Amino acid sequence: MSDKIPYKIYLTEDEIPTQWYNVRADMKNKPAPLINPGTGKPLGLDDLAPIFCDELNKQELDNDTKFFDIPEEILKFYKMYRPSPLVRAYFLEKALGTPAKIYYKFEGNNTSGSHKLNSAIAQAYYAKKQGLKGVTTETGAGQWGTALSMACSYFDLDCRVYMVKCSYEQKPFRREVMRTYGANVTPSPSDTTNVGRKILAEHPGTTGSLGCAISEAVEAAVSTEGYRYVLGSVLNQVLLHQTIIGLETQVALKKYGIKPDMIIGCAGGGSNLGGLVSPFIGEMLRGEANYQVIAVEPASCPSFTRGKYAYDFCDTGMICPLAKMYTLGSQFIPSASHAGGLRFHGMSSILSQLYHDGYMEARAVEQTAVFEAAQKFARVEGILPAPESSHAIKVAIDEALKCKETGEEKTIVFGLTGTGYFDLVAYEQFNSKTMTDTIPTDEDIAASLAKLPNVNF
Amino acid sequence: MSDKIPYKIYLTEDEIPTQWYNVRADMKNKPAPLINPGTGKPLGLDDLAPIFCDELNKQELDNDTKFFDIPEEILKFYKMYRPSPLVRAYFLEKALGTPAKIYYKFEGNNTSGSHKLNSAIAQAYYAKKQGLKGVTTETGAGQWGTALSMACSYFDLDCRVYMVKCSYEQKPFRREVMRTYGANVTPSPSDTTNVGRKILAEHPGTTGSLGCAISEAVEAAVSTEGYRYVLGSVLNQVLLHQTIIGLETQVALKKYGIKPDMIIGCAGGGSNLGGLVSPFIGEMLRGEANYQVIAVEPASCPSFTRGKYAYDFCDTGMICPLAKMYTLGSQFIPSASHAGGLRFHGMSSILSQLYHDGYMEARAVEQTAVFEAAQKFARVEGILPAPESSHAIKVAIDEALKCKETGEEKTIVFGLTGTGYFDLVAYEQFNSKTMTDTIPTDEDIAASLAKLPNVNF
Repeated sequence: MSDKIPYKIYLTEDEIPTQWYNVRADMKNKPAPLINPGTGKPLGLDDLAPIFCDELNKQELDNDTKFFDIPEEILKFYKMYRPSPLVRAYFLEKALGTPAKIYYKFEGNNTSGSHKLNSAIAQAYYAKKQGLKGVTTETGAGQWGTALSMACSYFDLDCRVYMVKCSYEQKPFRREVMRTYGANVTPSPSDTTNVGRKILAEHPGTTGSLGCAISEAVEAAVSTEGYRYVLGSVLNQVLLHQTIIGLETQVALKKYGIKPDMIIGCAGGGSNLGGLVSPFIGEMLRGEANYQVIAVEPASCPSFTRGKYAYDFCDTGMICPLAKMYTLGSQFIPSASHAGGLRFHGMSSILSQLYHDGYMEARAVEQTAVFEAAQKFARVEGILPAPESSHAIKVAIDEALKCKETGEEKTIVFGLTGTGYFDLVAYEQFNSKTMTDTIPTDEDIAASLAKLPNVNF
Repeated sequence: MSDKIPYKIYLTEDEIPTQWYNVRADMKNKPAPLINPGTGKPLGLDDLAPIFCDELNKQELDNDTKFFDIPEEILKFYKMYRPSPLVRAYFLEKALGTPAKIYYKFEGNNTSGSHKLNSAIAQAYYAKKQGLKGVTTETGAGQWGTALSMACSYFDLDCRVYMVKCSYEQKPFRREVMRTYGANVTPSPSDTTNVGRKILAEHPGTTGSLGCAISEAVEAAVSTEGYRYVLGSVLNQVLLHQTIIGLETQVALKKYGIKPDMIIGCAGGGSNLGGLVSPFIGEMLRGEANYQVIAVEPASCPSFTRGKYAYDFCDTGMICPLAKMYTLGSQFIPSASHAGGLRFHGMSSILSQLYHDGYMEARAVEQTAVFEAAQKFARVEGILPAPESSHAIKVAIDEALKCKETGEEKTIVFGLTGTGYFDLVAYEQFNSKTMTDTIPTDEDIAASLAKLPNVNF
């Protein structure tokens, strides 16, 4: 059978799944609810309505519905860039000399450069359906902002992106992609919001932060008629939309009779990891199969491997709700690594619960080793991977080399979330051997965890 | 039938053509041979052997063999990123409100970002087969250099790229992609060659030119044991390798019973245009079909529409052989447009002869209009196109809008050669409305053509 598997498995468009999968429905231990820090009570639809779109809030709070139909309009948009290929890494296997069979689900073949578009189009759709004029969001390096601007352009929605000022100025390329798609991109902090003006008055020369950009985006949404705020990771709704990744992977594997032993994904806020692994973990929860599921996080921001499972703020500004999650503390500042998408102090509540319950293990890997894996991969598989995705590559290679030692023919599936075309500053440092690894000390983490909010649920 | 055509037609890997097509075999009027400017005689294998690889020289001079088998190793590499999709532009059709059916062959889904890889891997293969240690080339913006570095990495060949110094310094991103794939990238002019040292002595502050980089790359190849020079466009061999584009397109169209009326491609040196259209023109030459074939060139560098069909040097340095082609004169300096891949004063000899014989028409389009088309396309089809490719988009849209007026349901196929992820400086100018159009005057072109070499063949 194996020799008949093509280099790239493309499903037909008819084979694209038409429902998203909600892993919460299969979880015995449900993820802990979001808590209003003011009242100490779980957030309900009414609390969320001023900030997020109504339909998305329903998805956010629904722990029971196992499948959500993907609306026709979203399915049509998915056909613009999906199905994404499941690639058999024949070239990598040969280069490693491993008996392991390696597959990767490649989400980078679209202009946003990553899987982010899967949720962006869904969030834009529900905003449009609600009759909104537009949405606001924040972006750091710009991957999520790019995806959202593409989605809003499709539905003719206004898209206001608050981009961390230092990225706006120093990384102008994604900014221009967003502008090409019609988004309004504002360097943050800005004088367009109260919080922005306040920060500018207090710190006139500041180059901004993600925390500040979130605050501005939320204020802009709440204070503008017909606008809501949207977010690209962490939330339950985002994981739901991203299950298209894992579901397509399952269809492709089934089509060729492939049974994976191991599923590997990089872990930041959890949007990609949850999207890829939760349909497989669903099989485990239902007792239908068993997989070794591995979350890979940067050693510079090790929320799973060195964090605490506790209620914490989702943002450094401490204005967002409290979520129970593996966290390094909302005041933890990860070092300036190049995997911007993984520099989040916490982790999705769903994934945190699943990890806590033993359905997943986690590994923390260092930046330079990640780029060595990225380069090795690029040279044989052709694709220049994003730094985030390369965390998964690193562990996939490690596992394949273990198979080489033991002779085991394991089947490894990993998520290749995106391309590194806008990460060449990082590759330049790697090529010039000026890249460094920074790992927080135990004291750093303890100090940050000491500032966790004092809540008791 | 039409409603069953998917958004993206992917061939299976077994359907990838296994031979390249040599249109010269079907041409009654063969393209004029390359001439040695010293002797005034056509170049033979012996003349070419010190510069180019032996097998490639055979392909270059062969006007008779209709099909060349694609070696197994190259076919395997092709499967890393091919078959490329033939996309039905449903979203664009709807946005235009046209009855036309629009398809595009998308060559951008690989890290080189364009079709250049199709020939790079072939040239690297023949270099390796000849037992060479490495190859040299020049690159401007870096698209060809990137493709070649990927190909050389695969065959473990040394790759030495002379990159125009101003691009090396101002556009470092493709340089870093090349370095990641192991290429040795030198800013040109450099002190590594005689010609480089001479230019540096005469013009100490120069930021280089493509002509200078070609001269350095050729000198480096000729003067280094085990090295040859490779080129990414213009040559017959390059057009031969690029026919994989048109041949795959034909297989995909046939699979769904689609008969195109019109084939559109952007025209620079001719690598993409020739690769896409020559299999279709072959049908015309054999009297099997008839198509409207349109070459689209920048109004700033209009070799087909305003040039002269004459023998001319292929390079501004006037060290390369003479080719008979549509040319604006080797001393013509196109304005600094953003479609760097189309800024060549001449045109492939094969395409020049076909154009001369009436198998193709040509249109010249202005830069700002091209970016307007690019933006319109990006917003509905999702892909941010390269400026070069956007020339074809512009004319495809023009033709689709004509169909809207006339009510004709024409089937339009165009080549989308690549993505614009490394062209964001151009998009920034467009978004900021600071982009300009520069069209040469009749006097400019006449002055340049007056300097054509005085040859009589």
